Amino acid sequence: MKNHYIRPLDLKRGRVDMSHGSGGRAMAQLIDEVFAPAFDNEFLRQGDDGARLPAAPAGARLVLATDAHVVSPLFFPGGDIGALAVHGTINDVAMMGATPLYLTASFILEEGFPLADLERIVASLARASREAGVPVVTGDTKVVEQGKGDGVFISTTGLGWLRPDLTLSGSRAAPGDAVLVSGPIGDHGMAIMSQRESLSFQAPILSDSAPLHGLAAALLDSGVTVKTLRDPTRGGLGTTLNEIAAQSGVGMMLEEGAIPVRPAVAAACELLGLDPLYCACEGRMVVVVAGEDGERALAALRAHPQGREAARIGTVHRDEHHFVQMTTGFGGRRIVDWLTGEQLPRIC
Amino acid sequence: MKNHYIRPLDLKRGRVDMSHGSGGRAMAQLIDEVFAPAFDNEFLRQGDDGARLPAAPAGARLVLATDAHVVSPLFFPGGDIGALAVHGTINDVAMMGATPLYLTASFILEEGFPLADLERIVASLARASREAGVPVVTGDTKVVEQGKGDGVFISTTGLGWLRPDLTLSGSRAAPGDAVLVSGPIGDHGMAIMSQRESLSFQAPILSDSAPLHGLAAALLDSGVTVKTLRDPTRGGLGTTLNEIAAQSGVGMMLEEGAIPVRPAVAAACELLGLDPLYCACEGRMVVVVAGEDGERALAALRAHPQGREAARIGTVHRDEHHFVQMTTGFGGRRIVDWLTGEQLPRIC
Repeated sequence: MKNHYIRPLDLKRGRVDMSHGSGGRAMAQLIDEVFAPAFDNEFLRQGDDGARLPAAPAGARLVLATDAHVVSPLFFPGGDIGALAVHGTINDVAMMGATPLYLTASFILEEGFPLADLERIVASLARASREAGVPVVTGDTKVVEQGKGDGVFISTTGLGWLRPDLTLSGSRAAPGDAVLVSGPIGDHGMAIMSQRESLSFQAPILSDSAPLHGLAAALLDSGVTVKTLRDPTRGGLGTTLNEIAAQSGVGMMLEEGAIPVRPAVAAACELLGLDPLYCACEGRMVVVVAGEDGERALAALRAHPQGREAARIGTVHRDEHHFVQMTTGFGGRRIVDWLTGEQLPRIC
Repeated sequence: MKNHYIRPLDLKRGRVDMSHGSGGRAMAQLIDEVFAPAFDNEFLRQGDDGARLPAAPAGARLVLATDAHVVSPLFFPGGDIGALAVHGTINDVAMMGATPLYLTASFILEEGFPLADLERIVASLARASREAGVPVVTGDTKVVEQGKGDGVFISTTGLGWLRPDLTLSGSRAAPGDAVLVSGPIGDHGMAIMSQRESLSFQAPILSDSAPLHGLAAALLDSGVTVKTLRDPTRGGLGTTLNEIAAQSGVGMMLEEGAIPVRPAVAAACELLGLDPLYCACEGRMVVVVAGEDGERALAALRAHPQGREAARIGTVHRDEHHFVQMTTGFGGRRIVDWLTGEQLPRIC
């Protein structure tokens, strides 16, 4: 049932053209020669309009999460749009406390995009998916005219199982709870920005893009009472904490000195007039746990390779205004507001 | 926990700007004032990174399908990108024999896009989802700079349940099987093309965009042995039948006179030098059933409001070349090949 094409795609010098989105023979060839070899698995091999998946474990609730990825540039220090699309969606499923099991991926390609770059992105997406153990089970490809897109956009959806006794939510934070972060903030945002601004540092800032389901499972398995997990992507830590505060109807008090920021990220932020509190992470999570579990949660995070630099950064308190505040190094206090305007466009 | 914004969005004259994709306050406002009121349901109200859904019925397999939608123009006779995004993905789930239950939607907006048009598209998407009984349970919004997108792209993913005893596939067609189509072909493709080419007819050609899960369920419940369901979208009926022939390793013989084509569609195709066999449908399905069930399947389709114009159009036979052929009105025969090149760009 393999198709036979007159000649194979030129993966070195070829480019995407409108016929690759036509639904006809050229699209079948693009799928057969670029997508299928990279993703090959039993579900894609079904070859139908969607994927047939096994039944869920009895009683397990389902979790769905979806993201459109429009990051620019497509390749950046520490990652690319392919791996990011996998990590971003796996993390949304993992932050619900669920086990991510399947991914879908749909591509919007711009006419003229080099097939070599597409192959590289698809390979990276496939590698990230294999490493995370979450296969891409179905997909779609569309092509738009030159000037109507920007190389590649990738939308991913993740499906996971959630055990019956666990409900994590941004609405569960309560006065007395401890607030933790799993590692230094802002790496992803500053990796993108330094690439865009052609900043160079002695050591380049690498994106922290990574799948968090292993770290989340380690924390949940440690037996602490987790209320909320959230990955501080767009809008950064500052906006994420404000979302949780608003959703739970509480305030928070952070300690500036406790929030981990790499020196290179702090320096780049200062240079560009940016605040690390609003710089996106793609491999960190915010954790809200019962106050008495704060130290055990910190220990559980630090015992995992992805959480070695975890820190306890603040406390939830009663506040009818739902303000997130921060004690600064000089003994002062400031309000950490929502991100207003657009600090970092197209970060993910 | 409702946010308070300085002033409401100007839904009459306002436009999308980069801050609406920032993850900060402007994005929260766009979600609160445009998306949330249109889609409101218990899952979106959870307000977390994904949606928590009930457990699947015991033993039911899951089906996932995904599509990126880049149709141009965004509004066309008989539909728009919002409704199309719902129908396209519901149909991919339904063609697997599954019951579609949940949708996700991610939007890529172009800076400068009128908020009034966005609201209209979101309202249409929400209406299509409600009418089909398949709620949008989670979503995402990104914004790209002017000239890096084309108004709105929408990626949708559908999740459904599949009963344990049913497996439909393009690989199940066997010699002797009957091939049916649920209604006239090419309406969607020609609705888009006549809008693009500013053709006007006495009666405008309307897209056939519609959800097919009701019609598919009626057919499956009729007790006939269904092998394959497939919706002939991009590439049209001709390409869809070639896909099935290749996947099943069979040939097909069609009867040209039996294939339903509306006179206006035939006329528009002739004018534009297009072949209705390659014009997309968005609310029709191809059915392959055991030969002896052909008439019962036809009756079951015709008994449903969406299948009144259904027709039996051909037969599956043994053919090692997997050719799809057609007997023409003049007693001749032609090969119906795959669509080659790009007949109708950005049709869905």
